[in-house]
Amino acid sequence: MKRAKITIVGAGNVGATTAHWCAAAELGDVVLLDIPQTEDMPKGKALDLMQASPIVGFDSNIVGTTDYADTKDSDVVVITAGIPRKPGMSRDDLLATNAKIVTAVTEQIKATSPNASIIVVSNPLDAMVQQAQKVSGFPANRVMGQAGVLDTARYRTFIAMELGVSVEDVSAMLMGGHGDTMVPMPSCTSVGGIPVTRLMDESRLEEIVDRARKGGAEIVGLLKTGSAYYAPAAATAQMVEAIVRDKKRLIPCAAYCDKEYGVGGYYVGVPVILGSNGVEKVVELDLTEQEKTDFQKSVDAVKGLVEAMDKLLAS
Amino acid sequence: MKRAKITIVGAGNVGATTAHWCAAAELGDVVLLDIPQTEDMPKGKALDLMQASPIVGFDSNIVGTTDYADTKDSDVVVITAGIPRKPGMSRDDLLATNAKIVTAVTEQIKATSPNASIIVVSNPLDAMVQQAQKVSGFPANRVMGQAGVLDTARYRTFIAMELGVSVEDVSAMLMGGHGDTMVPMPSCTSVGGIPVTRLMDESRLEEIVDRARKGGAEIVGLLKTGSAYYAPAAATAQMVEAIVRDKKRLIPCAAYCDKEYGVGGYYVGVPVILGSNGVEKVVELDLTEQEKTDFQKSVDAVKGLVEAMDKLLAS
Amino acid sequence: MKRAKITIVGAGNVGATTAHWCAAAELGDVVLLDIPQTEDMPKGKALDLMQASPIVGFDSNIVGTTDYADTKDSDVVVITAGIPRKPGMSRDDLLATNAKIVTAVTEQIKATSPNASIIVVSNPLDAMVQQAQKVSGFPANRVMGQAGVLDTARYRTFIAMELGVSVEDVSAMLMGGHGDTMVPMPSCTSVGGIPVTRLMDESRLEEIVDRARKGGAEIVGLLKTGSAYYAPAAATAQMVEAIVRDKKRLIPCAAYCDKEYGVGGYYVGVPVILGSNGVEKVVELDLTEQEKTDFQKSVDAVKGLVEAMDKLLAS
Amino acid sequence: MKRAKITIVGAGNVGATTAHWCAAAELGDVVLLDIPQTEDMPKGKALDLMQASPIVGFDSNIVGTTDYADTKDSDVVVITAGIPRKPGMSRDDLLATNAKIVTAVTEQIKATSPNASIIVVSNPLDAMVQQAQKVSGFPANRVMGQAGVLDTARYRTFIAMELGVSVEDVSAMLMGGHGDTMVPMPSCTSVGGIPVTRLMDESRLEEIVDRARKGGAEIVGLLKTGSAYYAPAAATAQMVEAIVRDKKRLIPCAAYCDKEYGVGGYYVGVPVILGSNGVEKVVELDLTEQEKTDFQKSVDAVKGLVEAMDKLLAS
Repeated sequence: MKRAKITIVGAGNVGATTAHWCAAAELGDVVLLDIPQTEDMPKGKALDLMQASPIVGFDSNIVGTTDYADTKDSDVVVITAGIPRKPGMSRDDLLATNAKIVTAVTEQIKATSPNASIIVVSNPLDAMVQQAQKVSGFPANRVMGQAGVLDTARYRTFIAMELGVSVEDVSAMLMGGHGDTMVPMPSCTSVGGIPVTRLMDESRLEEIVDRARKGGAEIVGLLKTGSAYYAPAAATAQMVEAIVRDKKRLIPCAAYCDKEYGVGGYYVGVPVILGSNGVEKVVELDLTEQEKTDFQKSVDAVKGLVEAMDKLLAS
Repeated sequence: MKRAKITIVGAGNVGATTAHWCAAAELGDVVLLDIPQTEDMPKGKALDLMQASPIVGFDSNIVGTTDYADTKDSDVVVITAGIPRKPGMSRDDLLATNAKIVTAVTEQIKATSPNASIIVVSNPLDAMVQQAQKVSGFPANRVMGQAGVLDTARYRTFIAMELGVSVEDVSAMLMGGHGDTMVPMPSCTSVGGIPVTRLMDESRLEEIVDRARKGGAEIVGLLKTGSAYYAPAAATAQMVEAIVRDKKRLIPCAAYCDKEYGVGGYYVGVPVILGSNGVEKVVELDLTEQEKTDFQKSVDAVKGLVEAMDKLLAS
Repeated sequence: MKRAKITIVGAGNVGATTAHWCAAAELGDVVLLDIPQTEDMPKGKALDLMQASPIVGFDSNIVGTTDYADTKDSDVVVITAGIPRKPGMSRDDLLATNAKIVTAVTEQIKATSPNASIIVVSNPLDAMVQQAQKVSGFPANRVMGQAGVLDTARYRTFIAMELGVSVEDVSAMLMGGHGDTMVPMPSCTSVGGIPVTRLMDESRLEEIVDRARKGGAEIVGLLKTGSAYYAPAAATAQMVEAIVRDKKRLIPCAAYCDKEYGVGGYYVGVPVILGSNGVEKVVELDLTEQEKTDFQKSVDAVKGLVEAMDKLLAS
Repeated sequence: MKRAKITIVGAGNVGATTAHWCAAAELGDVVLLDIPQTEDMPKGKALDLMQASPIVGFDSNIVGTTDYADTKDSDVVVITAGIPRKPGMSRDDLLATNAKIVTAVTEQIKATSPNASIIVVSNPLDAMVQQAQKVSGFPANRVMGQAGVLDTARYRTFIAMELGVSVEDVSAMLMGGHGDTMVPMPSCTSVGGIPVTRLMDESRLEEIVDRARKGGAEIVGLLKTGSAYYAPAAATAQMVEAIVRDKKRLIPCAAYCDKEYGVGGYYVGVPVILGSNGVEKVVELDLTEQEKTDFQKSVDAVKGLVEAMDKLLAS
């Protein structure tokens, strides 16, 4: 069997830490790419990470580069490129700049890895993944965005802390956009299988949902100079694993929805089954009225974002 | 830090495979003990398993023995001893014989490892664990029975198969006794956090619950000569891990319930938090009427079993 | 990426435990096959093992069967089939019976999985692997035998015990046949990189080599009814991993040597690089005079065995 | 069992990545501490890392702090504090500043975790660890420095690359100081147990030794702004693991040598057995003349460094 080839575009903290999680789990060979201006930096991080391999005991060829030729025929490409969000900056401020970056990256990927699955992590997520799909022309199931796994991870962490239980026992599904327009789904949250609503009162749960929704900003506020990377990278690596090991994970993901949930052709956070063919299925749930309202608000926000992006790119 | 010391009483398939899972996860040093009549057999299995360690890369001192002196000061003792269930044999047939075996084992454990937590796996489970607690005189939280983790594992496997999703995404809680008197809890079953009832129709789910309930018998029927050991051992090792790594797992377990659920001093399957102090908490849920009825039936069955055992032992 | 498909022929202890190690390490989907007379036994073991998966957290489709159709297009086939060695029985006694079994198995594999790599575990190993290659007609690099990894594992375990160090730090290479004709190579044994000869005196090391050489018999003697399976299965799973993860392990293996070491077309234990193409390279070392003599004795024994087998099969 | 408590002083890249490796391997609870001027930064990294835990599946309470009270009763303390080496800066330039930092840190550790083992990572390593032992007054076996595991990891990586084999199969021991005064030991380098000198010619090996010796500078040169952290952190985490899991690893480590190798009371890189009691044994090898000469040079360099430090601290 050939090893999987995983390209990570952007060798900043999120990209390099995604490389760390992927390599340590021996998911495949890793190419860590950044722009030519970073010179030998990706090489340095790749070599450093590779020098950890005899200690930890993983075999993974890790290459740092600024040349897309090295990414040729990747099985999965993770796009973390883009300007990072800074304290006080909204996700939408990043729109125009990052759309151009993602466009440029995707054109290169399309040319060098025509059969790859693409996982977009760049913000604002829901617009960036739409752009990546459009530019690549790849089947929609092979282009997706990471947001929901991270959001649920934060939410699950807070629930585990609150109840004093293992994080392994907390499961959750969230829908909608990343962050502010996240759709809380207390009905889709369980601990050891037990609905969280049977273990915690509603008002406490609402506080936790709210903290999760603002989870990225909380980290930015603490770090002062920089944003989260451990959990975003772990979330991304989990999606890579689902694809290269064909795990059929039922997880939240920014997936292309046309008829699904009546979205009409946009990327939005929904439950999916993720396997070797990328998004193998969008799982459609009967939503409650409240969930429907919240989800629609989320979809509207995505539409607004995509329109804004398209306008900016056309100008 | 001292390594945890884990004693497994019974070097048959369940015991030896529990040793396998525990050692491979580097949970601690393992003592595999069986009765003197087995002569060097436990030594043989222990040595064989230890010879796998340089290949797999775990450090665990694995000792096979027939002498309780070697188990001295264990942190966790797993009791798998007892006559195995054979095709056609009911769990209750085993009652008298296994009660005597568990009594003898527990007396030895009490003398050699007064601070251990005891996990009973011997059948009929709910009576054997009661007997082990009584004989040891250990605080009830430090004596518990493995049944629920196994039952839910079977149930989760069947759900994952049915939905075509990763087993990692299926969570479930079950209550009540092992096997026939298991209390199905579709309301405490979720997939990626989503209630299973939103993903599968009720009648299909009932079939799956039923298959899980008879899961042990299904394996016995297939194997012809012998009963399940991979999943029972994995379930037991998970409980060992929860204790030695203080994981605070929220899992089902045969735990001592007095006021809890109004049980009145019996061991019965309930959700617990399992950590370094054994059963650190019995999690009390508001049960539905149906769940209450089923649970009471289960408790009654346990009481009947314990009374039957006490009578047999007194005679 | 498609998951690797791993077929294990023989659902006895070695085969089933190989399935255990492979599945738990998520090396791929596993088919556990045995002869029709075993009826549903392989199904039972496979289902039991699969029911451990939600607990341990691995995704692997494990199928038990007696029908080669289920093994179709396997990437790796492990042959453990054959009559087990019993106390007092020499490996050579098994020759005729097992040669016929391996022949029959290989014919089926050839028909159903023409692109597989074959790892033979059946005894007497060096003859069985020769037969499997001959019957399959597969390129010699895709047919190999497991013996050396097990022998070195035993040797490494004893050295770690003697020196009181982690098994992870003991490395060793052995050459020649399995067991009695094993070629001890103290010069190829190191602990944390340090030659073992700088840490232990020669006579103690000789005792350890001798114990390793008789390691299989020691386990048989202890178990009384049966032979080793944990370490043999772990050794086999390591070879499977090297192939499906393309790890380029430098390990001992029964490999086809023609010009290599001047063997002249036989399978014999030598250092190899094991990767996705099977035995990608036989590593040729300059041997000392003593090593040469011992190795030649080993090769002669293999030749004798193969001739004896050919004669028996022709008659 | 209580979980191990691991404090990491310094929340920069090396410290935070050490937390990452330790937590992901579930070695214990982790406290990540930095100076008050970093404000909430350690909290931010700790929370981010903790939010990765439900995804990756590890239970570890990870706390970020600037208050030593939170580190109370740690089992292991890792000191990474100190000014990082910048491009062009020699290790010795850092001497005075880092000696004061390590002194201040050690005084706090002595007061709050009197029973801890201390692993020093700060540079210049050999002097910093001497200072930490002196200030703490801890038994010398409980204070040690990380350098050799990293140096060998780089060396092992380059050998694996050169030979095209798995990093898992390359073992090596190095002695002496970190970097320039490293003592190359080709005789203590093996691949699959085979002496590397039987697999590679001497001149190529010398080039590799030389590259390993300058391995830190190579990364600094590539990264431009910053120095290596993945491999240094993995090396440190391996030492933490050896202590908290009592693994008895035979690895290189800066250990206190008095009579050992005739060093006379300095910390210098030697082979040790590392377990729950810290450096449980310094392994004394008969060195070749060349090794002796190189080692003495290394010891002399350490003495010079320590004297320079003592003078600077006294002034």
